[in-house]
Amino acid sequence: MSLVKEFNDYRSKMNDLILSKDNLVIKRLWNLDTNTYAEGALTTKTKELLGLVASMVLRCDDCIKYHLGKAHELNVTTAEVYEVFAVANIVVGTIVIPHTRRAAAYWEELVGKPA
Amino acid sequence: MSLVKEFNDYRSKMNDLILSKDNLVIKRLWNLDTNTYAEGALTTKTKELLGLVASMVLRCDDCIKYHLGKAHELNVTTAEVYEVFAVANIVVGTIVIPHTRRAAAYWEELVGKPA
Amino acid sequence: MSLVKEFNDYRSKMNDLILSKDNLVIKRLWNLDTNTYAEGALTTKTKELLGLVASMVLRCDDCIKYHLGKAHELNVTTAEVYEVFAVANIVVGTIVIPHTRRAAAYWEELVGKPA
Amino acid sequence: MSLVKEFNDYRSKMNDLILSKDNLVIKRLWNLDTNTYAEGALTTKTKELLGLVASMVLRCDDCIKYHLGKAHELNVTTAEVYEVFAVANIVVGTIVIPHTRRAAAYWEELVGKPA
Amino acid sequence: MSLVKEFNDYRSKMNDLILSKDNLVIKRLWNLDTNTYAEGALTTKTKELLGLVASMVLRCDDCIKYHLGKAHELNVTTAEVYEVFAVANIVVGTIVIPHTRRAAAYWEELVGKPA
Amino acid sequence: MSLVKEFNDYRSKMNDLILSKDNLVIKRLWNLDTNTYAEGALTTKTKELLGLVASMVLRCDDCIKYHLGKAHELNVTTAEVYEVFAVANIVVGTIVIPHTRRAAAYWEELVGKPA
Repeated sequence: MSLVKEFNDYRSKMNDLILSKDNLVIKRLWNLDTNTYAEGALTTKTKELLGLVASMVLRCDDCIKYHLGKAHELNVTTAEVYEVFAVANIVVGTIVIPHTRRAAAYWEELVGKPA
Repeated sequence: MSLVKEFNDYRSKMNDLILSKDNLVIKRLWNLDTNTYAEGALTTKTKELLGLVASMVLRCDDCIKYHLGKAHELNVTTAEVYEVFAVANIVVGTIVIPHTRRAAAYWEELVGKPA
Repeated sequence: MSLVKEFNDYRSKMNDLILSKDNLVIKRLWNLDTNTYAEGALTTKTKELLGLVASMVLRCDDCIKYHLGKAHELNVTTAEVYEVFAVANIVVGTIVIPHTRRAAAYWEELVGKPA
Repeated sequence: MSLVKEFNDYRSKMNDLILSKDNLVIKRLWNLDTNTYAEGALTTKTKELLGLVASMVLRCDDCIKYHLGKAHELNVTTAEVYEVFAVANIVVGTIVIPHTRRAAAYWEELVGKPA
Repeated sequence: MSLVKEFNDYRSKMNDLILSKDNLVIKRLWNLDTNTYAEGALTTKTKELLGLVASMVLRCDDCIKYHLGKAHELNVTTAEVYEVFAVANIVVGTIVIPHTRRAAAYWEELVGKPA
Repeated sequence: MSLVKEFNDYRSKMNDLILSKDNLVIKRLWNLDTNTYAEGALTTKTKELLGLVASMVLRCDDCIKYHLGKAHELNVTTAEVYEVFAVANIVVGTIVIPHTRRAAAYWEELVGKPA
């Protein structure tokens, strides 16, 4: 299965399971997450790039995939994505290289050129 | 193979390998780990929940699995487990959501309803 | 000035400043934080201990101070607090020792025996 | 002494000391850091906001101060800065609140209203 | 496929992809990484062990694999590798145990005794 | 007061307080910490450098001070210390620069040239 489909399917299925448990704190936090990236003083595009770089420096592969998907929907270019990768690589060093590899593979698939 | 069996089998096999190397520091640390969760001023159940939330905020999937297994043996309920998940989600934010998904899947299997 | 007063004064003053900026996401997240520790399937006391151990393993001194203050209000004993410290020390190793020192100093002051 | 002056003075003095030791790897890494934020596919302003959010989620107070200083030079507004704070608060949770307090105090001073 | 071959193949393929994008910051950082471990005041062997322990305490499995591979090329012994594992286990606690398991499995394969 | 004296005095005083509480897990962990750096397959000097780089990449200022003190007792040279700093800076990026500044100041004092 493709990396993108596998990620999205598991994400949907498990989010549904978790939300079915009716824990109010989790539900509200997750709602708030959606609001965070709404157009405001900063554009949604800028905020998604903030979410992407935050995910990279925290080395969370699934979070990176999520924000790469959003970036792709917002027509972020490959050059822009790699500049975000570069900021992450400088800020948090070579420890992020393995995550950059997986991010690059996922991005190739999003833009139609699976690695 | 089930998530639970796969985790436990690999854990046992590799722990045996590591302990066979006779590194005294590792052996003593691992023994001490067992003592940490013994009944004391706090109950073993409370301590296991502390171990679970610590594992979640540190985003260590295998540590989460280990403490979920222990929590299940101690008859922790699904509502209690989700309140631990909620604390972890608030304290450390959306970065822990992917780990919450995997934790939720593992818990379903422990309680007999594999996702 | 005492550690406790210094922490609480700065916390109040800066929280007021931040909330005066009317960022809705921050306001809602902070409200949600209060709800998280409410009585539920787990007691408020257990949840505060979860918040404390999470703060320790993430090595956030001010978060530790906040939860120690709450624990003190809830009549948590010194023996219980040190068992939380012990879990944190085992889970995240000697890197947490300097934070344990500052936590111990703050706790002494809370219980009326400033170090 | 003001927070801004204290930070900048110590930073300059210690950077000079470190660079005087002629460690080539450190020198080159630090040069590269400057290049990272140059105008490119993304603007310098966007990259500085990326550096700011990365510093916040990694909870590095001095890194936050550095990028707030740069943001101020680039005429970033208070509303924009607080949207970066909001992304950091959602992504990495309440653990970042104490750092948000110190960031807010530093920003007030930069815009001429010391807290 | 063997753990070692799988790691090296993916690493080579994805590094080539990333470098083909001509992001200068990433290229220079990665070059600098190679220089860091060159013979100097400290031997290359000591520096590789520093890279290994850093990778362990940061809990980056792929970084651990990379430095284990380098350590093996430099004739580091199993006893030496386990003393590095021990330092990592003490410094960062039981949270690193799952990474120690995977590191141990990879090392067995490098020395010709796949687990 | 000097950085070195201030660190050592607070460390001694608070360690005594913590150990006086007789938490067995903490006592045994701290004893084990001493054993970890004993001469073995690797020399004490190499192990102290491992402890130093681990402390740096985990960004624990007090842990850095402790291992710099030990390194100084073991006649580690300034060039060697800066090569450890360089490994830490590459592995974990610019986020470690503020900690490198404080480490450099502490080292100057140890070698008799307070910054």
